Amino acid sequence: MSAFSPEIEVAIARTRDEVSALHAELVRNGLVVWTGGNVSGRVPGADAFVIKPSGVSYDELRPENMIVCDLEGRVIPDTPGSDREPSSDTAAHAYVYRHMEHVGGVVHTHSPYATAWAARGEAIPCVITAMADEFGGEIPVGPFAIIGDDSIGRGIVETLTGHRSRAVLMQNHGPFTIGRNARDAVKAAVMVEDVARTVHLARQGGALLPIPQDAIDSLFDRYQNVYGQAAQGAMP
Amino acid sequence: MSAFSPEIEVAIARTRDEVSALHAELVRNGLVVWTGGNVSGRVPGADAFVIKPSGVSYDELRPENMIVCDLEGRVIPDTPGSDREPSSDTAAHAYVYRHMEHVGGVVHTHSPYATAWAARGEAIPCVITAMADEFGGEIPVGPFAIIGDDSIGRGIVETLTGHRSRAVLMQNHGPFTIGRNARDAVKAAVMVEDVARTVHLARQGGALLPIPQDAIDSLFDRYQNVYGQAAQGAMP
Amino acid sequence: MSAFSPEIEVAIARTRDEVSALHAELVRNGLVVWTGGNVSGRVPGADAFVIKPSGVSYDELRPENMIVCDLEGRVIPDTPGSDREPSSDTAAHAYVYRHMEHVGGVVHTHSPYATAWAARGEAIPCVITAMADEFGGEIPVGPFAIIGDDSIGRGIVETLTGHRSRAVLMQNHGPFTIGRNARDAVKAAVMVEDVARTVHLARQGGALLPIPQDAIDSLFDRYQNVYGQAAQGAMP
Amino acid sequence: MSAFSPEIEVAIARTRDEVSALHAELVRNGLVVWTGGNVSGRVPGADAFVIKPSGVSYDELRPENMIVCDLEGRVIPDTPGSDREPSSDTAAHAYVYRHMEHVGGVVHTHSPYATAWAARGEAIPCVITAMADEFGGEIPVGPFAIIGDDSIGRGIVETLTGHRSRAVLMQNHGPFTIGRNARDAVKAAVMVEDVARTVHLARQGGALLPIPQDAIDSLFDRYQNVYGQAAQGAMP
Repeated sequence: MSAFSPEIEVAIARTRDEVSALHAELVRNGLVVWTGGNVSGRVPGADAFVIKPSGVSYDELRPENMIVCDLEGRVIPDTPGSDREPSSDTAAHAYVYRHMEHVGGVVHTHSPYATAWAARGEAIPCVITAMADEFGGEIPVGPFAIIGDDSIGRGIVETLTGHRSRAVLMQNHGPFTIGRNARDAVKAAVMVEDVARTVHLARQGGALLPIPQDAIDSLFDRYQNVYGQAAQGAMP
Repeated sequence: MSAFSPEIEVAIARTRDEVSALHAELVRNGLVVWTGGNVSGRVPGADAFVIKPSGVSYDELRPENMIVCDLEGRVIPDTPGSDREPSSDTAAHAYVYRHMEHVGGVVHTHSPYATAWAARGEAIPCVITAMADEFGGEIPVGPFAIIGDDSIGRGIVETLTGHRSRAVLMQNHGPFTIGRNARDAVKAAVMVEDVARTVHLARQGGALLPIPQDAIDSLFDRYQNVYGQAAQGAMP
Repeated sequence: MSAFSPEIEVAIARTRDEVSALHAELVRNGLVVWTGGNVSGRVPGADAFVIKPSGVSYDELRPENMIVCDLEGRVIPDTPGSDREPSSDTAAHAYVYRHMEHVGGVVHTHSPYATAWAARGEAIPCVITAMADEFGGEIPVGPFAIIGDDSIGRGIVETLTGHRSRAVLMQNHGPFTIGRNARDAVKAAVMVEDVARTVHLARQGGALLPIPQDAIDSLFDRYQNVYGQAAQGAMP
Repeated sequence: MSAFSPEIEVAIARTRDEVSALHAELVRNGLVVWTGGNVSGRVPGADAFVIKPSGVSYDELRPENMIVCDLEGRVIPDTPGSDREPSSDTAAHAYVYRHMEHVGGVVHTHSPYATAWAARGEAIPCVITAMADEFGGEIPVGPFAIIGDDSIGRGIVETLTGHRSRAVLMQNHGPFTIGRNARDAVKAAVMVEDVARTVHLARQGGALLPIPQDAIDSLFDRYQNVYGQAAQGAMP
């Protein structure tokens, strides 16, 4: 029997649907292979988030096998999917939700171009306007951190707090992205790979032209406040 | 109630269908991710063009949510889709239609190889015959320009006026292409990425062999006048 | 009314089906964009070959709009498709069929990695066993030749006559491949891009290890005579 | 009439299904072109394995045309598919099954990035955590070996015996991978190409950051024992 109110049950069901469907975007955009990568979404109104099970094929992901966790990353008992193990990155997602209240979604991949920058521990310089729009400047590198304790989550939070970027390249590991909701975090994961690739290709051919800082500021401001069908607002 | 004659209404409906369908070619050819990129087409016989809405997923694009604008880039009221915002690049498209009468279609993408050349501000040299055929020489670079006023449109028009190329690489931004109609501009967007990739790969391996200017001229002339099922004519 | 015997009519119909279907392999293997590239197949028992129409979308290719040409590259009148223009590379295909009797299929693409080698005028060295199997050594470069007369066809024939390779990289242009039949030539087009890519990537990372000539000879001999479901025989 | 017990017949049928279906993963993950690449799986409880036929299109692979071989690599007579030739790499697979009892699956491809490392005879250094997880360190190079005798199989076994990696890059040839079963070997083939690509891209951009050996050990240990829905156990 559920410990949640009917309203929260509805919110969980919607988050299961959304998180399950968004995993298909990782595949479609070439960000993951085999069972790698994971998307999570915060359940609105509850101290809980939904994440994918560990080591399960993308073809087999369904809303009902998504897993509901509390903000310590513990599986909530007696919920659908609670008989399975959640993603091995669950502790990192939980840490982010505990420490960044405005974050509604987290994504992690090993997408190849972004991970290539991470293997050198090198931030991606902001030399294309799409990157200024989306990330407001360079994409930073986070520390080398071993999976299994809080060190990955702490590295994400420390790097992104006060930073315009919604993406961090964890050293020798790969990108983590955050967003207002799970869809926004997936968008950031798609865009970080796109700019990681374009800037990689650009630099292979010679010297990059910088974008003046005031132009970066202006592009970021416009995109956060004007672009799209309604002002969606930058993350605070 | 519509301000257009029945003939123009038919032309608008056809342009909606065409512009909506052509966006699928951007996806199919790997030129765009997420909601990036846009195609527009001039409405034959009217001072108007059709363009995609801003920030809408490619899966959701339909003829009825395409947006009709006048040549100043203002949404024409009381037409289907007029409750939505048009692409954030609408001002640039409008500028091109106002100043280049022979242009019937405009396309903009951030396709990765073409944008990589743009991030270095470097024109693509004409070293493959397919490029001589299609573009008649190098693909030029346009100025760095901030979105939101006429500077992008002006940069496109100034760079392409009197130039054989139907594509310009806007510095730090990405390619814009023009064409006799929307399909022709999409073809140019596909081809500019193809040649940007091939010439990038070629130069990674060593020195490029130039094509003599008279051979470029001869290839361009033949392609514009002979290729295909009927002489389609180069743009004047 | 047809000038062909019933047996030849059947052979033409089969070649139309085969050549039409094989164009899908060019798309599936990423060898072509838009309307680029072409496949032809010799009609067994007749001085004729089947080739694709010029400038027609891959989605619209059907057996009935394939075009039947004589060995001078002239469209045979009063055959289905004869109201359209054949591929602009038809003269080159015809030249090959006239001068290389054992050739039953010809393919041309601008596949990106193979064309990159062609833009440097550089043969692909044989450093992987799959290349020794399939091509028996390096993939040679042919001369720079302008489309529209016999110079492309002559360059193909002169380069490949007496050479183990079924592929030639025409300088600044792209690969042409030949085969026992159209399917075999398509296979060679797929394989030449595959090895062009792998050897390009290999050399980007450092010095290549050569394969000893006697090992190349042994691999080529085995593959031509043993591989597959029946000894298919190398081209003489 | 079959020489196998009913239990073994069931095991063969299951292995046929599995091996046939897994070939689709090679295509889906971009590891193979045309008829290249092969997957085999050991039949539990029997001195036999199932492998794909030689030179047959991926579209035509079906459980019933998979081929059953003994551990010397000889086709077992009077079994479905026994009228066809098995993969030309069958001797190498057989050698592995004879000499590595814990191996239940073998895969071979010419995937482009992994083969590029093989063409330089260079091991892939362990600079990303996904590689430490999956392979426990660098991916080693095996000797140059000519197809047709035991030298490929011997090179695989000698390189991987006592090594954490389930993948070996056979010099100038391409990757071979092993696994607890055919699916596990396919996973290794997918992952080796993924890390070969990421580390290639990383090094194109500058110096790589090493991962400390104790961190590699810790990641490998965790992944082999904790990851996934049940402890699957590393190969001994």
